[in-house]
Amino acid sequence: MSLKEQSVATDPTEPTSLPLEEVLRHADANMNESLDRLFQLLRIPSVSCDPLYASQCQEAASWLANELTGIGFDACVRQTTGHPVVVGHQGQTSGPHILFYGHYDVQPVEPLDEWAADPFDPKLRAQPDGETHIVSRGASDDKGQLLTFIEACRAWKAVTGHLPLGVSMFFEGEEESGSPSMEQFLDEAGQELRADVMLLCDTYLWNDAVPAVTVMFRGLLEEEIEVTCANRDLHSGAYGNAARNPIQVLAELIASLRGESGEVAIEGFYEDVREPDEKLRSELKKLNFDADNFLKNVGLSKSAGDQAYSVLEQVWTRPSCEINGIAGGYYGDGLKTIIPSKAVAKISFRLVAGQDPGKIQSKFHEHIRARMPADCAVKFTGLGGSKASVIPSKSEYLRRARAALKDEWNCESVLIGSGGSIPIVSVMQSRFGLDSLPIGFARSDNRHHSPNEKYDVSSFHKGIRSWIRVLAELSHCESNRRKV
Amino acid sequence: MSLKEQSVATDPTEPTSLPLEEVLRHADANMNESLDRLFQLLRIPSVSCDPLYASQCQEAASWLANELTGIGFDACVRQTTGHPVVVGHQGQTSGPHILFYGHYDVQPVEPLDEWAADPFDPKLRAQPDGETHIVSRGASDDKGQLLTFIEACRAWKAVTGHLPLGVSMFFEGEEESGSPSMEQFLDEAGQELRADVMLLCDTYLWNDAVPAVTVMFRGLLEEEIEVTCANRDLHSGAYGNAARNPIQVLAELIASLRGESGEVAIEGFYEDVREPDEKLRSELKKLNFDADNFLKNVGLSKSAGDQAYSVLEQVWTRPSCEINGIAGGYYGDGLKTIIPSKAVAKISFRLVAGQDPGKIQSKFHEHIRARMPADCAVKFTGLGGSKASVIPSKSEYLRRARAALKDEWNCESVLIGSGGSIPIVSVMQSRFGLDSLPIGFARSDNRHHSPNEKYDVSSFHKGIRSWIRVLAELSHCESNRRKV
Repeated sequence: MSLKEQSVATDPTEPTSLPLEEVLRHADANMNESLDRLFQLLRIPSVSCDPLYASQCQEAASWLANELTGIGFDACVRQTTGHPVVVGHQGQTSGPHILFYGHYDVQPVEPLDEWAADPFDPKLRAQPDGETHIVSRGASDDKGQLLTFIEACRAWKAVTGHLPLGVSMFFEGEEESGSPSMEQFLDEAGQELRADVMLLCDTYLWNDAVPAVTVMFRGLLEEEIEVTCANRDLHSGAYGNAARNPIQVLAELIASLRGESGEVAIEGFYEDVREPDEKLRSELKKLNFDADNFLKNVGLSKSAGDQAYSVLEQVWTRPSCEINGIAGGYYGDGLKTIIPSKAVAKISFRLVAGQDPGKIQSKFHEHIRARMPADCAVKFTGLGGSKASVIPSKSEYLRRARAALKDEWNCESVLIGSGGSIPIVSVMQSRFGLDSLPIGFARSDNRHHSPNEKYDVSSFHKGIRSWIRVLAELSHCESNRRKV
Repeated sequence: MSLKEQSVATDPTEPTSLPLEEVLRHADANMNESLDRLFQLLRIPSVSCDPLYASQCQEAASWLANELTGIGFDACVRQTTGHPVVVGHQGQTSGPHILFYGHYDVQPVEPLDEWAADPFDPKLRAQPDGETHIVSRGASDDKGQLLTFIEACRAWKAVTGHLPLGVSMFFEGEEESGSPSMEQFLDEAGQELRADVMLLCDTYLWNDAVPAVTVMFRGLLEEEIEVTCANRDLHSGAYGNAARNPIQVLAELIASLRGESGEVAIEGFYEDVREPDEKLRSELKKLNFDADNFLKNVGLSKSAGDQAYSVLEQVWTRPSCEINGIAGGYYGDGLKTIIPSKAVAKISFRLVAGQDPGKIQSKFHEHIRARMPADCAVKFTGLGGSKASVIPSKSEYLRRARAALKDEWNCESVLIGSGGSIPIVSVMQSRFGLDSLPIGFARSDNRHHSPNEKYDVSSFHKGIRSWIRVLAELSHCESNRRKV
């Protein structure tokens, strides 16, 4: 008798009798199959910011829709104005209904020569500490993490024939590019994503042994700035001194963005910042964050941000301004003696509660325009933006999810912040009043966005087990929102 | 009877009987063949700064050696530690012996998409003003210009069977890369390049109607600077504010290189600068340089350099510091939310008389090191350097060359400076006491080092005719140096 046939005996109307241990055992026994599926997804180079990979983004979406259909979801790929999304539903006649969000797109892999192996040919690599790493672009952010949830659902289905509560899935393909098509898609199809709570997995453990629920995300404003001086590249001998150099101009503009103490020096940049409430501040203090070690792990010893704030505040509760890329003139081998016509930089701002991306964008543009010297033109290209979000730290869903995590990890979970941005969290909160439970199993050394990104097999395994438990626990919650 | 047979009748011991007009007519009649040869050379993509083009540099050298042999030179390709040089000799039993210098290497062609056509597929393009442009990388700098001299020699040989004076040719392939192999080659083989004077053609007309002898070149110091902060690229959400950003650091360093008035802000940068003498200053003043038009031609209206000096002084007699290229982080399509590990810039200094490249390099390194914040490493890579040079404004060779130019152009030539650097001029001056006569036929709109570089057919034609006359005139000079 197959596991699936066996599971037919379970009565879904009696949640207390859910064969939780059996589902966990099934997941344990099928880890290799779960890894095989993860590897299939990782082999698809779904880089969303580069138009060259559009068909691979489509392919990743199709793969996911197919997997969801295979475990009983009513799922399909939905086209958007950009890369497609995947939506799947598997309802229950009563009880709560949750929405799980993830993204199948990944960051570019450059600089490619810093990867030890092909970033889209995932490999298992045993480590001296006994861990095994899955090394690949997207291994952790977010393909490995989102599959923990799908595999948890698969285990429930395999053992019991159904899920312990109603589940919708929503995977986007533009998270790494500022989700430009999200708003329009939600305008058209958002109603069917309504649920009691949104789960997501694009976050970190607090440490290898302690799980976390991330209750605070920074927002994001992404800008490209191009400075043009002469109408063509000039010979630096013939024009050196006389012709305005756009690299020099751009460097001076960038230098003006930070003050002496590391603060962002745009006028009024901090004026709408809302500090975290007392309860959250005390939770954060209890974490005893080891700032020295945080910096040491990446080869640094001193924080560069506003010295009036702790390192944890700098990355979680204070807005930032970072130069993500710069290019101008000749940067191949040797030297080309030119004064280039133009130079470009990519600049992003991490925003915190209270800050409006549009208002910050205006202030940034004003700051730059006020500093442009003669004969220079500046062109701004907005690359997207989203507000910061804060998740209420008291709710039955949060309490029960933390209880489930405690069962799996044998310790209390913690509430943490994230310096990163998951736009969907603030979008779903502001559009539908839908709160999130971001529970992720990534470790701080997973190299998100960097060469040699990895995910620990133990993260993948305990992630699947954690979601199996969270699904069981949340099935007991009161449903207080409209079902799908 | 062929032209060559006919020419045997001329007596080389009687310079006054040289059939100058006949040689000029021969050059006129053979312009299409001269252009064909130029196009052959232009089709060889001899980009010296990029190792990918090493074999093409070799090919250009072989082509030149072959052409020289074809017109009676004892010529061959000589290997160096870098790209090869070409040396050829054709002596006379008495009278002066001159050395002609040129370079067969060219600048890279990036950005390729700004070229109207393949930069290595030269084409003639008729212009509304009646001129015809030769459009190609190297059309003017320096392939077109150096061929004016070879074609002048060819015409003399074709008509008279010999040259009016002893001539050596010396073509290098690393002028656009700072001539890294030059010193070693001159150590080994420099003696055979001794001559009474060195001619070169890598310079400009004063305007379309007025030829010039360039008597002042700036020197050059080329540096690459790499700033490294964290030991890998970081997620700008997770680390934004806290982690030192090497692009921000590099921008602040670059901003520190120029002061409020556009002066170079490195301490002691100007301390060894030798101002031009009174005679040269008055010659320069007489030029009535149209600074507004100079800037307007490239889309600018106001000079960016030290405002205490005129535009002509800024580009000829004052040293500069230019950022030639910069790169860091992600600069492809879209945005990648990283704080990169490193950023790099290519920086060059144009030096004037009195300044020592080694001393300026030390001051630059000190300036940068004194400004490095915590957790940042800086790596300097020297890419070459040369001193500025000033050519004596009184000599029989200069006087006679100007007389020849007057005959061809029907006006007095002028003495000018160049903001650019031709390292060989200072090297030959300091090594062998060999002065130069830099006479070029390029126009200011030739787009040296830029997309759509061009050379006017009229420059090519009058260049050949000018050299034919200069060779005749210089044959009357006293020889006061050891011959080859």
